[in-house]
Amino acid sequence: MQLTTYTDYALRVLIYLAVYDDRLVTIADITNAYGISKNHLMKIVHHLAQRGWITTTRGRRGGMRLAHPPTDISLGTVVQETEPHFHLVECFDPAANCCPITPACGLAEVLHEAQEAFLVVLNRYTLADIVTQKQALAQLLLPEGVMEASELPRRCAQAAPMPMRLLLMMRGTP
Amino acid sequence: MQLTTYTDYALRVLIYLAVYDDRLVTIADITNAYGISKNHLMKIVHHLAQRGWITTTRGRRGGMRLAHPPTDISLGTVVQETEPHFHLVECFDPAANCCPITPACGLAEVLHEAQEAFLVVLNRYTLADIVTQKQALAQLLLPEGVMEASELPRRCAQAAPMPMRLLLMMRGTP
Repeated sequence: MQLTTYTDYALRVLIYLAVYDDRLVTIADITNAYGISKNHLMKIVHHLAQRGWITTTRGRRGGMRLAHPPTDISLGTVVQETEPHFHLVECFDPAANCCPITPACGLAEVLHEAQEAFLVVLNRYTLADIVTQKQALAQLLLPEGVMEASELPRRCAQAAPMPMRLLLMMRGTP
Repeated sequence: MQLTTYTDYALRVLIYLAVYDDRLVTIADITNAYGISKNHLMKIVHHLAQRGWITTTRGRRGGMRLAHPPTDISLGTVVQETEPHFHLVECFDPAANCCPITPACGLAEVLHEAQEAFLVVLNRYTLADIVTQKQALAQLLLPEGVMEASELPRRCAQAAPMPMRLLLMMRGTP
């Protein structure tokens, strides 16, 4: 059971913007901080802007910022709207379901109840609740900060931005 | 968010055995009932037997049956032991985690709490709770029963066992 990378990265964008809430942030800032692909992020940022969670400003000095205070952005809503679906098993999707016992099987009801419990917990939290360590997060989100504090394994070097990649490569050198 | 097909099929095997608890069941019986691949099922059946949920008898008249009453088989345990992992996001798996903000980020704690709530619900139910409509399930699990009762879309024809496949193909004929 896992969430998509899309949802994971959407949450990371929102976390970044909640931490650096005093300025306009560029996609390059976020790409460099997390070492994740720019193309992937562009789609997500577009989605977050369309959804009204962030505002974007075009131009050379443009960037994005949160459109609402972090206390107003529900984690339950973000996860529900960024996950492509919540079809835990085949019969959750009537358009794709081929399971012949669907009309009499009790599994779907139990799984729906479990999924509801999952979302009830997420609905109790907002973006503000996961960025309480704002200063530490700000430090970790600076590429130099990452180099200081990171306990990341060497295999992350490939995805990491250049300064961190160099550090991780050096660590592996005998 | 979804469970793997492996878990879905493991549950279907257990449901079949709970419904037909008066005889030894073959892999072919289950394959024909659900229209799912034999190779996939063999691995699952082996796993369920190793785990002690079912017993298997070899030979021409061999087959499998539940090793315990359905009331003793917890859905939470089955899902937890058949899902390959519960790494909702990257940082749930320390061996693969490259997210630099892990030490200060509050997301993992919230997601762990949500996942726990999901499993608490599943742990409240057993196999017996999802096969209460035993007679209806028995009917739906017979290939002929499926042909009678099914509302399955035509796209399921490819996966279905032969008699059902013919029916579904005929439905599509003008």
